[in-house]
Amino acid sequence: MNLKDIKITDRFWSGKIELIRNEVIPYQWEILNDRVPGAAPSYCMHNFRAAAELNRRKKEGRDYTEPVYTFRGFETLPEDPSDPKEDEFYGFVFQDSDFYKWIEAVGYSLMTKPDPILEKTADEAIDIVCSAQADDGYLDTYYIINGRDRCFTNLRDHHELYCLGHLIEGAIAYFEATGKDKLLIAARRYADHVFERIGPEKDKIHGYPGHEIAEMALFKLYRTTGDIRYLKLSEYFIDERGKEPLYFYLEHPETDASSDPFKYYHQSHLPVRYQDEAVGHAVRAVYLYSAMADLAHHNNDEELKSACERLWDSITSEKMYITGGIGATHIGESFSFPYDLPNDTAYAETCASIGLVFFARRMLEIRPDRKFSDVMELALFNGILSGIAVDGKSFFYVNPLEVIPEACHKDGRKAHVKPVRQKWFGCACCPPNLARLIQSIGKYAFSETEDTLFIHLFMGAELKKNGVDIRIDSNMPGSGKVTIKTNNPGNSLTIAVRIPSWCTCPSISGSDPFKTENGYMYFDIPHSTSTITIDLPMIPGFVCADPRVTEDKGKVAVIRGPVVYCAEEADNGPSLASLHVDTSVIPEEEISDEPESETVFLRVHGKKVTDSREGSDYVSKLYKTFSGTIEEEKDIRLIPYRLWANRGEGEMRVFLNV
Amino acid sequence: MNLKDIKITDRFWSGKIELIRNEVIPYQWEILNDRVPGAAPSYCMHNFRAAAELNRRKKEGRDYTEPVYTFRGFETLPEDPSDPKEDEFYGFVFQDSDFYKWIEAVGYSLMTKPDPILEKTADEAIDIVCSAQADDGYLDTYYIINGRDRCFTNLRDHHELYCLGHLIEGAIAYFEATGKDKLLIAARRYADHVFERIGPEKDKIHGYPGHEIAEMALFKLYRTTGDIRYLKLSEYFIDERGKEPLYFYLEHPETDASSDPFKYYHQSHLPVRYQDEAVGHAVRAVYLYSAMADLAHHNNDEELKSACERLWDSITSEKMYITGGIGATHIGESFSFPYDLPNDTAYAETCASIGLVFFARRMLEIRPDRKFSDVMELALFNGILSGIAVDGKSFFYVNPLEVIPEACHKDGRKAHVKPVRQKWFGCACCPPNLARLIQSIGKYAFSETEDTLFIHLFMGAELKKNGVDIRIDSNMPGSGKVTIKTNNPGNSLTIAVRIPSWCTCPSISGSDPFKTENGYMYFDIPHSTSTITIDLPMIPGFVCADPRVTEDKGKVAVIRGPVVYCAEEADNGPSLASLHVDTSVIPEEEISDEPESETVFLRVHGKKVTDSREGSDYVSKLYKTFSGTIEEEKDIRLIPYRLWANRGEGEMRVFLNV
Repeated sequence: MNLKDIKITDRFWSGKIELIRNEVIPYQWEILNDRVPGAAPSYCMHNFRAAAELNRRKKEGRDYTEPVYTFRGFETLPEDPSDPKEDEFYGFVFQDSDFYKWIEAVGYSLMTKPDPILEKTADEAIDIVCSAQADDGYLDTYYIINGRDRCFTNLRDHHELYCLGHLIEGAIAYFEATGKDKLLIAARRYADHVFERIGPEKDKIHGYPGHEIAEMALFKLYRTTGDIRYLKLSEYFIDERGKEPLYFYLEHPETDASSDPFKYYHQSHLPVRYQDEAVGHAVRAVYLYSAMADLAHHNNDEELKSACERLWDSITSEKMYITGGIGATHIGESFSFPYDLPNDTAYAETCASIGLVFFARRMLEIRPDRKFSDVMELALFNGILSGIAVDGKSFFYVNPLEVIPEACHKDGRKAHVKPVRQKWFGCACCPPNLARLIQSIGKYAFSETEDTLFIHLFMGAELKKNGVDIRIDSNMPGSGKVTIKTNNPGNSLTIAVRIPSWCTCPSISGSDPFKTENGYMYFDIPHSTSTITIDLPMIPGFVCADPRVTEDKGKVAVIRGPVVYCAEEADNGPSLASLHVDTSVIPEEEISDEPESETVFLRVHGKKVTDSREGSDYVSKLYKTFSGTIEEEKDIRLIPYRLWANRGEGEMRVFLNV
Repeated sequence: MNLKDIKITDRFWSGKIELIRNEVIPYQWEILNDRVPGAAPSYCMHNFRAAAELNRRKKEGRDYTEPVYTFRGFETLPEDPSDPKEDEFYGFVFQDSDFYKWIEAVGYSLMTKPDPILEKTADEAIDIVCSAQADDGYLDTYYIINGRDRCFTNLRDHHELYCLGHLIEGAIAYFEATGKDKLLIAARRYADHVFERIGPEKDKIHGYPGHEIAEMALFKLYRTTGDIRYLKLSEYFIDERGKEPLYFYLEHPETDASSDPFKYYHQSHLPVRYQDEAVGHAVRAVYLYSAMADLAHHNNDEELKSACERLWDSITSEKMYITGGIGATHIGESFSFPYDLPNDTAYAETCASIGLVFFARRMLEIRPDRKFSDVMELALFNGILSGIAVDGKSFFYVNPLEVIPEACHKDGRKAHVKPVRQKWFGCACCPPNLARLIQSIGKYAFSETEDTLFIHLFMGAELKKNGVDIRIDSNMPGSGKVTIKTNNPGNSLTIAVRIPSWCTCPSISGSDPFKTENGYMYFDIPHSTSTITIDLPMIPGFVCADPRVTEDKGKVAVIRGPVVYCAEEADNGPSLASLHVDTSVIPEEEISDEPESETVFLRVHGKKVTDSREGSDYVSKLYKTFSGTIEEEKDIRLIPYRLWANRGEGEMRVFLNV
């Protein structure tokens, strides 16, 4: 289903899409061009220009000597920041990808709302990017500028194939939006070049990406162009990964495999088909699993499907925060061991939750099951939207479930946890990832098979399938009433609607489903106009974690439908750890049009428990003999987790004491 | 009061002293000589031999060229571990200090129990160490072997003055024990050399130690020799520290002061007299404060006394675990911010608590106040003795208050926390520090002024003061009954006895104190035989932390006198986080002669609380709607914290849920 054919009319999601369109995309363009005062320069467009300039000099045969590569660190900064040299590379080794993520978001934006000025800016930028490409198709400015002699010699740590992946995804989106294929051709040329250099043949490199994404991008390129070489290359990357002898150790003989702390970081410790547990860098992992799901589905590869299911279960049954956040430790931005889900030192990177959505969406292609779409919805409404401020101007990379600002400022163990959103990041993956996801949200809400339209997420939208006009109205996440109006001139169509697991008493009217399977109700659409009304009552409730999650023992999270709530200091004063909720009283709802339309706040009954402090000092005044507690009744006001940290700095807590 | 004049007859402490004498000192000697199979070589004696060999060659004028220094890292290991070169330096830059700590413990051991074989070994080792000394008195094998041209150019990171400090302390102990002054002369020569190189004069280096200890050692050397230069040098180190321009930044222009993460690490950010908060590396800090207290007392320096009091209060009122552990973060092995005392990621290094005892003991010289001695006792019975196994064969560096072994093994954030004691450490500071403290415990129990004997800690002992024979009997930490028998031929003597703050109902018989001040009762000793009986009932109780200690909210620790208790998995099964104690029932005592004589275990009434898990899944099976809890009555068995981890690996917890 093409994004162009889905018109999002939803109040909630349209707001987010507009925010990306009006705030994030323009701001990001300024960032890419180092024009934001106070923000660290990106050097992204600078690098494309520098590579283009070198290409020109080379062609003209003057002022040019082939550079000899020397490693200068993963981030290169100009010696004199006020005067970057026009022919040098700056920034992180993967800086090119910032443009590719931007152009992808631009593509999706243009699909739903044409904007000639934006398109012109994009076309001009594409011209620069394409002039940076080498004659043989290679396109990574880091090596073009610093020396091609060593390209593809550090697949583990450098990001040439990562940049290829994002280039492909950006190029396809822009092509689909505008029909313009200049960037797509560049992407194909680079992919063709990689195909010549890496693969199973004897004279090729037998490696794979250190940061996965090319796998799913190449699959998409194959779907877009029909060129089977891209499918083959994607399959090669998937199946070569983790085969003995392990490529990354061949590439890096200086690394001792037996004591390598990054053994699992790249998910390359074992062939992916044999992996059971989600490990290593969380973003890398879910990007890999997404590609595995693509190939498993396309090739009807049962072994790979099983691996995908196992890895899905490993994440969602043992390693996922209730917010849909994944990656419990900042060490390697990685999954921790099962049930280790600390709230205050969580990593839970916005990008990782976005990658989880990618994975979920692809699993739904294999088989529609609400276990995938429930998680997709959970991640979207919580751990992903928490990544962007309501005004669209600042972002979270890390999405903790518990914050005491003083600890973030003063305790090095929490230095990665920011109590307020940041303007931008040197390593700017999350904001553009948010941009491209939100701009293409329709692709996640709906999918289709030949005879069926699947509704995975509830949002107001108009679309057409098999000649049937479909109009969906929804108020989510405000309330759970959904209507699906169809106008069918006489075709055959099934609509399958997810009934979320959080809803224990759905009521359906207007039509009866002919079957319910894996959480989806299947409706035959009559040859006329019809309306199906689905009411999914969103009753606030309390949720507890598996008892093996030590951090959450004796605590509950408050939820309403797929929305997870949190307490903030702004509403409840400091020392949130003293609050206890009364789970016998159903939380009260409080509806407001601020900061989002129809925002539902909750008020739970509870108490504040403090030590009486009447005991005598024990050794020092820091400790006192216990003299009982003072309990004070207190209503606790909760806000949707996605909205935390929009009112300045303060404490925040998702799991509250019972 | 000379250690030789204190005869420890105490059952508990004699056992510990014997353990050090019979287990730790001989084992450590083997370690120093790289003769323990399976343990990482120390290279300590190797380095002294290598330096001695180079000195010999230099004198003989053959096979010797003056080495030119090149930095090769803080730890140098042989290229071929099976064949270390006889003229190279190996191990950490501060490796010499291992011998000095050993000889200090040997000295104390010989004071209380002669051992001609041990003394012969020590004499031979001292011969080697002294032949390593350079002609000009310099004695640090790292630079003697690697090149003297750069000595004293990295006071911040290298440990030449740290080694000087430990050399002095070891030499004095050995001299006091045996009367042999060979090592003491070597220590003086090195101190004299430093005096010539560092100091306020224009042509000298205006620096100070990166790791404090020389300050207190030089003061001790002044007290031992009467040579005022050592006092001056100690004072210089104290007063120069933290003066602008900061020496460590002059020494290291490559370090940017404005972004230096180690700004507070060395306590050199501000002149020590103006410091209010205990910061940075905890061991370094308390070693510095100890020297400050020495000088403040000796010079009757009121400003310095005030600084000591402020820093004492900063530690004990805001930054000390209930076990007497200090240093809440492994990042820089440092103090964290006030009230940040996480139980599971604690650093609480054994050495830091030992240093806190050094500091406390010196504050007691300034003014006797139980606020100092109470902490000294608390640290000894908990966070220090926890550092050594009951069999004396393994050691903790880090002393956490909560352990889940799986997390220590799998979570990099807790990699510093070991769930079982280790045989030895590459950086072997804690075991020898334990050895020297325990072997000299009598110095901490008692102090004197002209007319008064102070009893700070309760332990069986025989000593003489002003011609009065004093015999103390005590059963601590088994019970709190103390008798003090005196036989006074007719002299004037006051005995001042600490009444611990943990004891709310002491009873005294046999004599009445003529005054009570700052927690000490002062008794006139009659001209005859007399007995003072002091009963300090040790009633088990519950203690809570200041409410600003977030980690301990809703929790209590169980104590009995100065002994802090903990729950272990071995007694209570796993999932200690599910246990809740009933604070309304006084814990029952259970006395056993294992593993230490008269060990008191406790049994507290409580319950085990688990979620009913009857709710339905919320999005994934990791989360369920809350359906209440199941409470099961349960007696919880507690053991003294110092005895944890003597029965294999398992969970442990000090602070328990109420």
